[in-house]
Amino acid sequence: MSQDPSLSTAVIECHSIGEMITPFSQKFGIPRQSSSLTDIPGYIRLIPPYDDINGFRGIDMFSHLWIVFQFNQSVNSTQTYSPLIRPPRLGGNEKIGVFASRSSFRPNNIGLSKVKFSHIERINGETRLHILGVDCLNGTPILDIKPYVAYADSESDAQSGFADGAPKPTLRISFAEQVFTQINTHVLPETQTPQTFLTLIEQVIAYDPRPAYHKNPDYQAQYPNKKYHIILFDLDIEFIVTDNQHAHIINIKA
Amino acid sequence: MSQDPSLSTAVIECHSIGEMITPFSQKFGIPRQSSSLTDIPGYIRLIPPYDDINGFRGIDMFSHLWIVFQFNQSVNSTQTYSPLIRPPRLGGNEKIGVFASRSSFRPNNIGLSKVKFSHIERINGETRLHILGVDCLNGTPILDIKPYVAYADSESDAQSGFADGAPKPTLRISFAEQVFTQINTHVLPETQTPQTFLTLIEQVIAYDPRPAYHKNPDYQAQYPNKKYHIILFDLDIEFIVTDNQHAHIINIKA
Repeated sequence: MSQDPSLSTAVIECHSIGEMITPFSQKFGIPRQSSSLTDIPGYIRLIPPYDDINGFRGIDMFSHLWIVFQFNQSVNSTQTYSPLIRPPRLGGNEKIGVFASRSSFRPNNIGLSKVKFSHIERINGETRLHILGVDCLNGTPILDIKPYVAYADSESDAQSGFADGAPKPTLRISFAEQVFTQINTHVLPETQTPQTFLTLIEQVIAYDPRPAYHKNPDYQAQYPNKKYHIILFDLDIEFIVTDNQHAHIINIKA
Repeated sequence: MSQDPSLSTAVIECHSIGEMITPFSQKFGIPRQSSSLTDIPGYIRLIPPYDDINGFRGIDMFSHLWIVFQFNQSVNSTQTYSPLIRPPRLGGNEKIGVFASRSSFRPNNIGLSKVKFSHIERINGETRLHILGVDCLNGTPILDIKPYVAYADSESDAQSGFADGAPKPTLRISFAEQVFTQINTHVLPETQTPQTFLTLIEQVIAYDPRPAYHKNPDYQAQYPNKKYHIILFDLDIEFIVTDNQHAHIINIKA
């Protein structure tokens, strides 16, 4: 057994094997651990030499995959290590240990997401691994892709502390009439139609992306009819929330 | 959306946050994905500054953890990338893609294991996170520790291709009389008693660590009474297998 008393951290050099393409260009609004909740589509663009299609032989035998990625917009280095975080699930008031949370502010900034496998394709000289249920920022560097192995990975009775129970969609969504006109004036990404884009908006906003304290009546009295913005792909979605129950989408702007 | 056609791999610098202490000083014999199958104990010795006990506040609310680690005895670098591997589950004959497998020979050598949380302690100036169901080599560098969140991570109906169904213990274990004498002459690790050590031997060998082709009658006719060796902690366990059903432990040597 290694029992070196002068234990010190060693540098481990990793490389990105790909990049995740998702609708999310900002953290605000990303449904957390979304693969259990949504079918939001995205894909991983593999970087050579990892774009070799042989590396994916047999992957279609698996319904789910693990994506190991880097939270590249979060920094928690050895120099700035901060052992306590405030998880949004606890309303942002209570502090817990970083290793008792899935916070992005963590040593090595390594993230782990379960996603659904959709398909893999070679297109325009690229290899794209299409997945459903993405919860990463667009451009997220990918460190690994592994098959989900049910007998080893599934633990349905696991006690999950403050994260017991899935988040529920709490907001009913409606669209202003002009939104249906606006959406036809914008160039959507190749993977989207106006209808899939409206569904995407619904899926994201239904989980109420607002900070917990914005649900407080005092806050709402102070800022009535507050307008919120979510960016999906390159489009700005403007909405208001009433009674913590209903989100009304007002505008879609480039 | 990022659509840079000259996509190239970026270096991501990681640090080990700790080191896994396990009974396994060699790969041969480690039960794969063992937390679903065994309660083999081990612990993670945290490296400063990650040994701050605050980083684990609330971790006892979770029954299971994810350990993200480095397969530091496997190499599959960008220079030597090999997209196909032969999983032991398929008898070592069929090739599948590395991203359709949990093989240790993979880009970035990142491993992922689900383990059971046991307890955390400060002892001899160290912080030790004790876990059950370990399947890593002793000394494995740890990159991250995350709580297992059932609603997000559990997918009991996931299709798992060739890894459908847990490995089963196939060997019945017996001990030669002298083994009970020998075990009392050796200095065991502080975490073990003679009884727990014999249980550990049983748990490991019952899953039949032999290469698939050793189960072939032709091989066995050629090498009758072949002696196998497994190293657990610093002790060499010698055993024979008869009829692919019965392992007899002959010797425990330092």
